[in-house]
Amino acid sequence: MKKLIKSFVAICLMAWLMPASILAQQALWGSSKIVSPEIHEDNTVTFRLHAPKAVKVQVSGDFLAKGTADLVENKEGVWEYKTPEPLAPELYSYTFLVDGLKINDPNNVYMIRDVASVTNVFIIGGDRADLYKVNQVPHGTVSKIWYDSPSLGINRRLTVYTPAGYETSGKRYPVFYLLHGMGGDENAWSELGRASQILDNLIAQGKAEPMIVVMTNGNAALEAAPGESSLGWNVQPTFQLPKTMEGSFETHFPEVVKFIEKHYRTKANKKNRAIAGLSMGGFHSMHISKHYPDMFDYVGLFSAAILPGQNVTSPIYENLEGKLAVQFGKRPALYWIGIGKTDFLYKSNEEYRKLLDSKGYPYEYYENEDGHIWRNWRIYLSEFVPKLFK
Amino acid sequence: MKKLIKSFVAICLMAWLMPASILAQQALWGSSKIVSPEIHEDNTVTFRLHAPKAVKVQVSGDFLAKGTADLVENKEGVWEYKTPEPLAPELYSYTFLVDGLKINDPNNVYMIRDVASVTNVFIIGGDRADLYKVNQVPHGTVSKIWYDSPSLGINRRLTVYTPAGYETSGKRYPVFYLLHGMGGDENAWSELGRASQILDNLIAQGKAEPMIVVMTNGNAALEAAPGESSLGWNVQPTFQLPKTMEGSFETHFPEVVKFIEKHYRTKANKKNRAIAGLSMGGFHSMHISKHYPDMFDYVGLFSAAILPGQNVTSPIYENLEGKLAVQFGKRPALYWIGIGKTDFLYKSNEEYRKLLDSKGYPYEYYENEDGHIWRNWRIYLSEFVPKLFK
Repeated sequence: MKKLIKSFVAICLMAWLMPASILAQQALWGSSKIVSPEIHEDNTVTFRLHAPKAVKVQVSGDFLAKGTADLVENKEGVWEYKTPEPLAPELYSYTFLVDGLKINDPNNVYMIRDVASVTNVFIIGGDRADLYKVNQVPHGTVSKIWYDSPSLGINRRLTVYTPAGYETSGKRYPVFYLLHGMGGDENAWSELGRASQILDNLIAQGKAEPMIVVMTNGNAALEAAPGESSLGWNVQPTFQLPKTMEGSFETHFPEVVKFIEKHYRTKANKKNRAIAGLSMGGFHSMHISKHYPDMFDYVGLFSAAILPGQNVTSPIYENLEGKLAVQFGKRPALYWIGIGKTDFLYKSNEEYRKLLDSKGYPYEYYENEDGHIWRNWRIYLSEFVPKLFK
Repeated sequence: MKKLIKSFVAICLMAWLMPASILAQQALWGSSKIVSPEIHEDNTVTFRLHAPKAVKVQVSGDFLAKGTADLVENKEGVWEYKTPEPLAPELYSYTFLVDGLKINDPNNVYMIRDVASVTNVFIIGGDRADLYKVNQVPHGTVSKIWYDSPSLGINRRLTVYTPAGYETSGKRYPVFYLLHGMGGDENAWSELGRASQILDNLIAQGKAEPMIVVMTNGNAALEAAPGESSLGWNVQPTFQLPKTMEGSFETHFPEVVKFIEKHYRTKANKKNRAIAGLSMGGFHSMHISKHYPDMFDYVGLFSAAILPGQNVTSPIYENLEGKLAVQFGKRPALYWIGIGKTDFLYKSNEEYRKLLDSKGYPYEYYENEDGHIWRNWRIYLSEFVPKLFK
């Protein structure tokens, strides 16, 4: 038997190494012995690409001060770049540029889509970045579940995280609604946002309460993330979506809460509900939490797209100051604002904080480096979650 | 407000169009106006790639008789290939070859990993391929849930499909265990296998019973799919895994069944349990179903890696004929074998069928074109599922 199994493995490997013409009939498999990225013990990183006919090869990544770096070719046609310094702990994204053509690293199957871009990813461990890893701790369940929205007229997809033990504990749990930014979808927080890893790890460390996390799709015209809806794979992801930031999503939000509280064992009251979001999701969280002031006791605005205009077209945006007065009159357990110093929304957040300050409304404020990037949103999530439901 | 939202969109789009050096600080976003693949009304397909510095550009895909086809460059540096004939309804995979370098189509974000290869995908609708699409029908829930395996000594990840309505129906459901092939994992059937779409559509059409589908990870040494375990993203997927096809996975299988029956509302008896798998998963299904003859009433072998040797090293492989006699003595509701005419496992399946025939053991047999490819495994799944639990 063992011998026969070895033959089977050998046959599979043969198929694996066959030229493309045969592969097309058996399967599209392929591989290479090149290691890229190679993370060295000192946390320097080497990127490699076999491209003997290329004239110029660059790596474009969020760990490079200049944005790109040139690779150098060796005798075998393998291009290489090693970072001159160790990289700090973080989840990083990169792509290659081969004679100007943007490509993914063919030796790294780990890629994440952000709106219309797919980039390769890798993690340098240590410090906070260990929260972004799958560690040997009890794991929650991540589900893709569909709910019916009568007001939007469609079935819509949610990502729901239930903490380890949920299925058999018989307990009820608090619920944290976590909203994505413009061009994002219900997959964004669980992919680049590493929400399930951050929750698993913080709960295992005893730093966060076990909670349900509900990741919605904030594009009110859509059923689901690109490629996951009846629009199929013919539609390319885009920032420019209909029915976005015009009130429909915010107004319909109680339908989501109602669905979750019917389908999951929740603690269905204000002090056990939180809402937060990044960018457009921060805008949504601000408006939903003030429009429905008895719904959420915890509110988080992460690099929020706060646009303090009054020329509204939806009831949800009307009477900002009056609604804030009601919301803060009810003394929310936490109103949390996080933003990076170079974020293009820094000033509008500053103006919003001035408004809150002028009224004496209390909030926690977290300011750090960098701008409107996932690095910051993962940080804000891991700062915000330990403050909930305590 | 509307004006301010428009400004926000404009700022996002500006960020989107910024050069890589700025993007690296804000986010790795990018796009292009090139449409690829473009599926025309007559189901011919055009592939395009902007690569003005390339000398030769090819498309490699499973819809090409020769495996590859050459693209032709226009004045703007856009390379193009249009299929001479309409493509038949199917889910297809492809990559580009740019001066010999295998790359994914930068204008198509839809990609699926199969072992160590990531290919772009598209669907030509119609006929059976409509089962592979997300249609506007009630959708089941797809969950990633972890179970503890005392015998394997690790926490392990499952993909579980529960049919639309499961959460609130209060009903109990039959369970179908669906196993992947060598190098695959618990994501394989829900990605290239389109299992949740096939189930959603067949159930909506009234052709299949609502059922729970459990997709295991058949690599007994691993916690989860590549990138989803504590091994992190440093490990490249491979066919050559330890503790594969040596009995551990098959022996531990009752732990999976026990977990599912504790955590889900199941009909926990033989006539409401099915098991099937592709290639190595067919080998697993054959051995599990005969070693535990009171567990499964429905068995499916899809291009099964049947290796009728007797030189076994695990009790699970011992006494093949004796165990088959017990299994078939109990008259399983369905024993189903499917294989393609050019599959490299065709002969070993033929020998296995001869053995069954010689004993007079009944089975259903489905033979079709092509070989050891996902196209066939989707067909076998959509043929097998309507026969279950009736």
